[in-house]
Amino acid sequence: MKVRTENGEKDIRAVWFEDGKVVMIDQRRLPHELVFVSFDRYEDVAESIRNMTTRGAPSIGATAAYGMCLAALSGCDLEEAAKVTKSARPTANDLFYAVDHMLNELSKGIDPIVAADAYAQSMVDKCTSIGEFGGPLIKDGFKVMTHCNAGALATVDVGTALAPIRKAKTDGKKFFVYASETRPRLQGMQLTAWELNQEGIDHAIIPDGSSGHFIREGVDIIIVGADRIAANGDFANKIGTFEKAVLAKEFGVPFYVAAPISTFDFNTPTGKDIVIENRSEEEVTMIGDVRISPVGSPALNPAFDMTPAKYVTGFITEKGILKPEEISKVRE
Amino acid sequence: MKVRTENGEKDIRAVWFEDGKVVMIDQRRLPHELVFVSFDRYEDVAESIRNMTTRGAPSIGATAAYGMCLAALSGCDLEEAAKVTKSARPTANDLFYAVDHMLNELSKGIDPIVAADAYAQSMVDKCTSIGEFGGPLIKDGFKVMTHCNAGALATVDVGTALAPIRKAKTDGKKFFVYASETRPRLQGMQLTAWELNQEGIDHAIIPDGSSGHFIREGVDIIIVGADRIAANGDFANKIGTFEKAVLAKEFGVPFYVAAPISTFDFNTPTGKDIVIENRSEEEVTMIGDVRISPVGSPALNPAFDMTPAKYVTGFITEKGILKPEEISKVRE
Repeated sequence: MKVRTENGEKDIRAVWFEDGKVVMIDQRRLPHELVFVSFDRYEDVAESIRNMTTRGAPSIGATAAYGMCLAALSGCDLEEAAKVTKSARPTANDLFYAVDHMLNELSKGIDPIVAADAYAQSMVDKCTSIGEFGGPLIKDGFKVMTHCNAGALATVDVGTALAPIRKAKTDGKKFFVYASETRPRLQGMQLTAWELNQEGIDHAIIPDGSSGHFIREGVDIIIVGADRIAANGDFANKIGTFEKAVLAKEFGVPFYVAAPISTFDFNTPTGKDIVIENRSEEEVTMIGDVRISPVGSPALNPAFDMTPAKYVTGFITEKGILKPEEISKVRE
Repeated sequence: MKVRTENGEKDIRAVWFEDGKVVMIDQRRLPHELVFVSFDRYEDVAESIRNMTTRGAPSIGATAAYGMCLAALSGCDLEEAAKVTKSARPTANDLFYAVDHMLNELSKGIDPIVAADAYAQSMVDKCTSIGEFGGPLIKDGFKVMTHCNAGALATVDVGTALAPIRKAKTDGKKFFVYASETRPRLQGMQLTAWELNQEGIDHAIIPDGSSGHFIREGVDIIIVGADRIAANGDFANKIGTFEKAVLAKEFGVPFYVAAPISTFDFNTPTGKDIVIENRSEEEVTMIGDVRISPVGSPALNPAFDMTPAKYVTGFITEKGILKPEEISKVRE
């Protein structure tokens, strides 16, 4: 992804391995400043997943792979490292997938850095393919809506939901993107809008509750990411996704989910089997260190919601666009 | 409404007339501090409506009535005062209704203070009736959802959407209220939750985008206010209302609009004729003086949305609960 630094424009990733350390963008400090942090202990990498220094299912997966790489390089107990890393977040399937993938690669004697780099590169390749399949869905003059950040920051590079948008831009199409702000943590406002701005893509931030207003006014396509997709096509994504899916159905707007096959969890039969993470109420009641809510009023903070497959027009994957009833084809 | 001050608990209104001045709660400073401001010029009262020191359609109406009272007491040109006052906000029908009502009362030689106090009292009486009609809709064990602030702060006292909730509490029922935070200005978090907390009503603040998640989990009734109701039952209310109405329909949840008859605008045939106010993007991109969005990303900020009548189960008014097809009965 393109970023502007003090030393000019650079092309970087959300997370990478360099000089024995895992380096990543501290996404909590965006969009105000671009800061990199690095870790040489897998426990700290797990913590960076838990505290959302890095976020987004595929970036979490790559970060976990690099964490397992550190554990292997340091001679740590890999089963223990796997357990600690997997416990960092409860919802993202990529986290479990990446850890198990690394355990398997390491058991075959593959070099830890080579294995983790290959995992990260495969994510980028998959996102590039998602862009190639999804880009043609966006026509000249379209109004596109997305939610949360399923961009390069979330997926090492390129993005999932933002991959078709980046591709449409590269192909010279003119279109407009509504980025819903995504309370409570504002990833849509602070990360997606930041990425769109860096890429020069025409866009506006909207409050989450205005999505229905704009969908009725005329959105042509909605593209979101996913944190986990169950075997029947039900999927979990950032809180606020489900509402957009219902509104899309009400107004006949195509609703697409962009995700690599690794986000499909065929061991989870339906959306009812997906555990929804409840995060602390302070994410809702505080902005930075400032309390914005009345003392004495509790807040609820489910981080994700579950959208049933019946609301999904298609899944944009690295193997093509699949209808919900077709996803068993890609079972690996 | 009950408020806690340094001198103990008090029972006050959102706006009133005292010692030649219009006194009101500065609602922009809630929930952090309870501050009263007072004005003796109608222009300043109009400004207090424009800058949202006072807000909510019925409180705006009463404030406008008191502004016209000041204009009359000061011997100002009443037509000019009416014009200035009406221009303070574009959407709230109560504003126009109150100004025209005062012009009519003053033309009959009625004392300005008596006329304005009577207007404010009539609002409180209407809200009390709304509570009596709407309270029985809330049963023991219910989960109730509301949006924005249609409470005592918005309606001089008692509230519209909060009137049935206050009545159910007075009647000893046990129930739970979801108050959606209502970005960008957070009136649900900062005003509704504050009122519910003062009244000891069990509640939680939720992010707007989580409404669909909680509606599917099991909300028993949704009650919102309205800023303007067209002759066919389409209505404008705070941005975010429309989404809840669509979700309520999808899950068979009763969706009620609580509003006095003065909110009905029979000169507006349908919702398409309601002008939606677009407010400044800084309301979205700033929290207080702190910018939260990336520099270079614009934001859109429609203050209201329009919900078609077909999504409304009933209008809870001071004359009873009306289905959308019955509202012409109350045409005055």
